[in-house]
Amino acid sequence: MKVYGDLRPPERLLLGAGPSNIDPRVLKAMTLPIVEHLDPYFSEVMNETVEMLRYAFKTENRVTFPISGTGSAGMESAICNVVEGGDEVVVCISGFFGERMSDMVQRCGGKSVEVRAPLGGVVEKDRVEEALANSNAKAVAIVHAETSTGVLQPLKEISKITHEYGALLIVDAVTSLGGCELLVDEWGIDICYSASQKCLGCPPGLAPITVSERAMNIIRNRRTKVQSWYFDISMIEKYWLESNRIYHHTAPIPLVYALREGLRLLHEEGLEDRWMRHKENMQLLVEGIEEIGLTIFTDKRYLCPAITAINIPENIGDERVRRILREEYNITISGGLGALKGKIWRIGLMGINSTRKNALLATEALKNALKKEGYCKNR
Amino acid sequence: MKVYGDLRPPERLLLGAGPSNIDPRVLKAMTLPIVEHLDPYFSEVMNETVEMLRYAFKTENRVTFPISGTGSAGMESAICNVVEGGDEVVVCISGFFGERMSDMVQRCGGKSVEVRAPLGGVVEKDRVEEALANSNAKAVAIVHAETSTGVLQPLKEISKITHEYGALLIVDAVTSLGGCELLVDEWGIDICYSASQKCLGCPPGLAPITVSERAMNIIRNRRTKVQSWYFDISMIEKYWLESNRIYHHTAPIPLVYALREGLRLLHEEGLEDRWMRHKENMQLLVEGIEEIGLTIFTDKRYLCPAITAINIPENIGDERVRRILREEYNITISGGLGALKGKIWRIGLMGINSTRKNALLATEALKNALKKEGYCKNR
Repeated sequence: MKVYGDLRPPERLLLGAGPSNIDPRVLKAMTLPIVEHLDPYFSEVMNETVEMLRYAFKTENRVTFPISGTGSAGMESAICNVVEGGDEVVVCISGFFGERMSDMVQRCGGKSVEVRAPLGGVVEKDRVEEALANSNAKAVAIVHAETSTGVLQPLKEISKITHEYGALLIVDAVTSLGGCELLVDEWGIDICYSASQKCLGCPPGLAPITVSERAMNIIRNRRTKVQSWYFDISMIEKYWLESNRIYHHTAPIPLVYALREGLRLLHEEGLEDRWMRHKENMQLLVEGIEEIGLTIFTDKRYLCPAITAINIPENIGDERVRRILREEYNITISGGLGALKGKIWRIGLMGINSTRKNALLATEALKNALKKEGYCKNR
Repeated sequence: MKVYGDLRPPERLLLGAGPSNIDPRVLKAMTLPIVEHLDPYFSEVMNETVEMLRYAFKTENRVTFPISGTGSAGMESAICNVVEGGDEVVVCISGFFGERMSDMVQRCGGKSVEVRAPLGGVVEKDRVEEALANSNAKAVAIVHAETSTGVLQPLKEISKITHEYGALLIVDAVTSLGGCELLVDEWGIDICYSASQKCLGCPPGLAPITVSERAMNIIRNRRTKVQSWYFDISMIEKYWLESNRIYHHTAPIPLVYALREGLRLLHEEGLEDRWMRHKENMQLLVEGIEEIGLTIFTDKRYLCPAITAINIPENIGDERVRRILREEYNITISGGLGALKGKIWRIGLMGINSTRKNALLATEALKNALKKEGYCKNR
């Protein structure tokens, strides 16, 4: 019989599109004794997690909790609770994750009215207005930090126009929550979801979500049941938010411990200070990258503080460079997704990894790997 | 600003319906350095996890991997990949989780043809045959270990008749995998799913699933896309099983480390020895329970080795007894679900918790708690 050895993962510095490295305090939280998902102690943990999630989202929304799945489970939850057969949704697509939203809308029997931005750019408010005017959209879905292009999408004006047309605003904050300015209530976001493994610095496996009362009213008055039982927010809220905690599914206890600890770290640092730290370190990284002769892929007016997309110079092997970084420096960065495969690299400075040290280290390591590949600056 | 303290969970012995306590080796695996979901090291971990899952399921099915969600996510994956609008499914209901399957079938636009068993009993083969004869069922869905009633459902004959009618057999093995005899290939199960936190002794958050080639052919030839993007097995298999690993979602790395370690423990002990251990300790528990004057709820021909359902004596407060166990002994057991709330207790001996010591301890603690509540044996 085959013998399976001990796990011996390498100690990587994760400077890609996520997951990011996990804070030691969060790791420790995961190893604490588990209790049952209906234990009174866990009930307190849940309440505190919800409170701190509201802080992170800058919201007073009662319906705020983590979905028991990864970021894409958050995306599907947001969409499938709102969309019923025949509903129209304006889906803003500025990259890979916008495409995913559009696919999900259609799988829910909805019609996706697509508004496209140039890759590396943002979706213009006027284009959204046009789409709203020419459709009967129930919602507008948009990605805040498009991880695939490094764009941070402005949301205030799009929110205003969305509400003028009586639609709900659904926002993907997978890569922005806890790292980039995000004001759910002030900006009028109706549904916002994220993931645990990016700027929150927790392991992947949970997708925090928050839903406005306005959106909940629409969800509660659906003609049909939500097509997904697992992602049915009206059932999950009875477990996460009601004092008698009606069992829905078994929460992944150690991941909730981890999320609570990750949120506690955020709470201790302060949300605004955290945003500033991510922004400053991203800027330092961008300066370094440009100094070594590389160019930024993203429209520089809309740089996302959590992730930086860099053009791969001609005649340089995408995967070879990443392999050098991984094998010689134990650093991982990400390549491009979909249409951008082989065209860009993506360097993420998220959570505990957003430091001046890592900004410099990423630049220097990339410079060395490029040298090895025969790339020299001003050729 | 509110201050959130350190997590200080109590050290409970989890003898309820799951989660079970986690083996220290599994806990340790969760704290190892994480790598990216596309890292070559993680790729090896995935391959070994798949191999050991095949061992646990007793199957050669290529399509075998963990879904990134809890047991109910496994249930939804099994159902939504098979069922299209208008499809009929015979759903066998012997308790709470059969009801859940029926709900899910309907949310997929399918028609659920329900076959009911008395609570505490099993579904009879003849009733399934009747339902198959009177419908045009694409599949039969059935729970192997019905956690809500303590029943272990025989499957061989039902499998035979299901295939005679050309239908697929979908089996819920949430509470049985790794603790009760389960032979996926030999019994002709087409789709079988489970959960990580029961007899596998891992944290909750993953749902192992295995799908026969016969079922995959039907899934690949659907008229419509699977309604769930997150649970679309044909996409997930490209990430979990193909060597170029096409990104689908970010796997919950530490949970996969944990599952691999839990499976390694199973592999070291041996599947058959593990089944025997669970069976013997359950029998010891049942003897003890009867000795203190309580009666077993479940039809004794079909006792599940992982969980034992006990009738609550008249005039005894369900929640008061459980509170005594929790507060004075740090032991949790489960109450009844749905129609059985207040009527039964459920004691689980799963994974590392299935020991002679725990069988005795559970009996003695329950006896003491009952005494405190004024219960005496032969009254």
